[in-house]
Amino acid sequence: MSHHIAIVDLGSNTTRLVIYDYEPGKRFHLVDEVRQVVRLREGMGNTNILRAAAIKRSLNALRMFRALCDALGVEDAVVAATSAVRDAGNSASFLARAEADTGWTLRILSGEEEGYYGALGAVNATGLSTGFVIDLGGGSAQVTEVRGGLPRQSVSLPLGALRLTELFLDSPKVTPEQVEALRSFTREQLEPLDWFQAQPGDGLVAIGGTIRNLTQIDQAQKRFPLDTVQGYELQADSLHDISERLWRLSLKKRIALKGLRSDRADIIHAGALVFSEMLRYSGFATITISRQGLREGLFYEQFLADQPRPVIDNLRRFSVENLARNFDNDDAHSRHVAFLALRMFDQLRTAHQLDDSYRELLWAAGRLHDIGTVVNYQSHHLHSYYIVLNHTLPGYTPRELALIALLCRYHRSKGRPGPKELASLLQKGDADALVALVGILRLAEFFERGRRQVIRDVRCHVDLEHGWLQIEALAAGDAAMEMWDAGRNLDVLTQALGLEVELVEGMWLEEDDQH
Amino acid sequence: MSHHIAIVDLGSNTTRLVIYDYEPGKRFHLVDEVRQVVRLREGMGNTNILRAAAIKRSLNALRMFRALCDALGVEDAVVAATSAVRDAGNSASFLARAEADTGWTLRILSGEEEGYYGALGAVNATGLSTGFVIDLGGGSAQVTEVRGGLPRQSVSLPLGALRLTELFLDSPKVTPEQVEALRSFTREQLEPLDWFQAQPGDGLVAIGGTIRNLTQIDQAQKRFPLDTVQGYELQADSLHDISERLWRLSLKKRIALKGLRSDRADIIHAGALVFSEMLRYSGFATITISRQGLREGLFYEQFLADQPRPVIDNLRRFSVENLARNFDNDDAHSRHVAFLALRMFDQLRTAHQLDDSYRELLWAAGRLHDIGTVVNYQSHHLHSYYIVLNHTLPGYTPRELALIALLCRYHRSKGRPGPKELASLLQKGDADALVALVGILRLAEFFERGRRQVIRDVRCHVDLEHGWLQIEALAAGDAAMEMWDAGRNLDVLTQALGLEVELVEGMWLEEDDQH
Repeated sequence: MSHHIAIVDLGSNTTRLVIYDYEPGKRFHLVDEVRQVVRLREGMGNTNILRAAAIKRSLNALRMFRALCDALGVEDAVVAATSAVRDAGNSASFLARAEADTGWTLRILSGEEEGYYGALGAVNATGLSTGFVIDLGGGSAQVTEVRGGLPRQSVSLPLGALRLTELFLDSPKVTPEQVEALRSFTREQLEPLDWFQAQPGDGLVAIGGTIRNLTQIDQAQKRFPLDTVQGYELQADSLHDISERLWRLSLKKRIALKGLRSDRADIIHAGALVFSEMLRYSGFATITISRQGLREGLFYEQFLADQPRPVIDNLRRFSVENLARNFDNDDAHSRHVAFLALRMFDQLRTAHQLDDSYRELLWAAGRLHDIGTVVNYQSHHLHSYYIVLNHTLPGYTPRELALIALLCRYHRSKGRPGPKELASLLQKGDADALVALVGILRLAEFFERGRRQVIRDVRCHVDLEHGWLQIEALAAGDAAMEMWDAGRNLDVLTQALGLEVELVEGMWLEEDDQH
Repeated sequence: MSHHIAIVDLGSNTTRLVIYDYEPGKRFHLVDEVRQVVRLREGMGNTNILRAAAIKRSLNALRMFRALCDALGVEDAVVAATSAVRDAGNSASFLARAEADTGWTLRILSGEEEGYYGALGAVNATGLSTGFVIDLGGGSAQVTEVRGGLPRQSVSLPLGALRLTELFLDSPKVTPEQVEALRSFTREQLEPLDWFQAQPGDGLVAIGGTIRNLTQIDQAQKRFPLDTVQGYELQADSLHDISERLWRLSLKKRIALKGLRSDRADIIHAGALVFSEMLRYSGFATITISRQGLREGLFYEQFLADQPRPVIDNLRRFSVENLARNFDNDDAHSRHVAFLALRMFDQLRTAHQLDDSYRELLWAAGRLHDIGTVVNYQSHHLHSYYIVLNHTLPGYTPRELALIALLCRYHRSKGRPGPKELASLLQKGDADALVALVGILRLAEFFERGRRQVIRDVRCHVDLEHGWLQIEALAAGDAAMEMWDAGRNLDVLTQALGLEVELVEGMWLEEDDQH
């Protein structure tokens, strides 16, 4: 059964509505999204009073979100408010108004809860099992410890970008003294967090609009070839450089900066300085970016309500399966292509000599190779590539994502595969591995040309000494077409392995079953 | 009811299978495609005997096509053979073997029929109503006259690229004498075609692998930004240049040529010379390329079997509707966005001063703006752009296609629209028109934010003298959300028209109905 749920996040800077369509624990996808910069914290400074104009903007946005949810038939809603409302002396009256206007029950998240849900979103986007999550918003910043794949202790610090801009950088031209004041305030706040220190094996993940924008600035400089921040590793040195540069620029120059959203240009420098101090304090050399945070954490709690804990069990597998399920392609076919490809990968180890880390990527590409048919059968390999890169696969690194996408791209087109515009994401050895994996995947695909699993399994015999290899296709029925199509598509595998490849049609016997 | 039909085209050079899923007269899409270079004509020269190896390759391919059709549950098949089989003295025995092996009834097309079906495909891809279609294949070339939107007289000439290569250019290094012999043979063949002359209003459309490849060479030179030949206008001068260059190159250099398929490099120069002579003879200054030809013509005869003639009535409308229907998006929503956009276009004529040719593009974008949600809701405007460009819209020129795609791309993203990488396709005035059309389309989209047609219609009042414009949204119910979202998305329209834009919520009355 498919459900529609709305998640609303009433932040200090931005209010957002997201609507998901989902089957509990199985699959989900986003169906609508609205973002409105309401600046609920604007003018609060340290007075802790929500201002009239800000209240009006927020109530207006909430009413419109409710109207949209009604129009789209949304069944459930989780509406959460964070630091601006939490800190405000007049929050009770604001909440009462909001509930009367929308009929929704608003939930004020404590600083700890805000940290918990943000980290939950981040853990389910990156597979982080041990380390920390930083969520830097407009009003506050949460630092949350993650152990055993679950968010544990969390602290909320008054280090939001909008708040610090108002407190420290509220002048057209920022001075070194202002910057130093902001920095030392940040250090004071971090001082008590003796547990926020990088230990071996720990990872640091960051979420929120500020870090996304800082990442986009870094990506623009480095000509990063993907249009997503998800899974990106931002180097501490790059972040320090960017933060040093930003506060020296005028607002106008910040707005013109490549990669920066113009509606965030007036607070980004404060956020950059906070991140820079946090990295120095904790001793991490890189930050991994998660596109998912608080809203997604609130969603996962609902999505995984039937499970013992709100964390996706095997994130890498789930990401692939979620994409495959959402595109409703021929499940039996893509599973069988993945199966045949892995069987060849395993039996050809002495020939391809690839390490096991490639095996999972081959499986993922087997599952996803045909999702592009949703766009058009013609050139569907290109469309699968496009869809994989656009959706991203949470849990995989950008390099792994690139390899999976490239495998999809070359699963049926002619000619020798190459990394093309994604070359900068790959490591040494990947380009050669790609050719071998494409050789295997194509063969698996052509063994499944009729999409009817007639070639049940394969048996490979490698003779490295004499430079040949026999692949026996175990057929349960007439597989002449599959043998023909596989036979005319051996060139890449032959090239990659440097072996003569011989195809033989064998007979499948029940006792051979390896499924 | 959805049907599966296979079309097989047993050509002199290539054998192809295409499988369509369709509802008669309503919508269709390609579900599978196999291409095999069997070179059925190879070794025939002027002996007119199909050779043993070529027969074996062809029968093998046909058997595999049949097996694939069975595996995919194809109900009907149209299997057509062209000049190689038509010309062969031993065709009867070949046909009997093929029918015994596949169970399909093969149909040998006469030269006239081959011309007719090729032209039918081309007419349904370009909307050509008067002029000529050239189909240059491996064995023969068909020239077909089109009048009143239907293929009329047709002649088949022995000018196929494979045949002429064997007869005239069969040596590693081609000499000027060989080229002159080919040319004069071509001229002799054209001599009797006194009706094949460009008249005012006539168009020339070409189909087949040879012209597609020549076009790709031209596109690569000119850095044409779309990855399709459909609707491309190839200039006569460019074609003459390319044909002069090709025969002077060695096979190796031809293979290395950007844009050229390597399995066609050994016969492309002969084809280029024939096209060059045909253009000189007929006096056309450009050729329009159709991606659809013989196979599609055979398909349209089935697809449109219930109609008085096998020609799509309103090709431009059908192309848009076919795409919209295949992506099964929210029909009522996209139709209403298109309606509201056109209503504003019509009422704002004095303000935008755009000519009516833009009106249809606005309608098309209204219908197609959301098809990208099939890929992902996030960035679906970019996905709609991608899908429109990848499918193309038969009947529209590349410039019009670009404008429709750009309108889709900017229907919801922030900021000022620009032609970006498609700039080279646009004409003077298009970039400004794009901004005005985006302004209108965005407003229509936001008036339909709840996808429930609550704003039934609009009334625009333009006061150019005082520089303002009022748009009255006629609401049949609570449209606060739509008014809110439209109100915060007026910037592009304001900019484009140079008028202050004022939104007013009015009440819709039955008698206002303009649908």
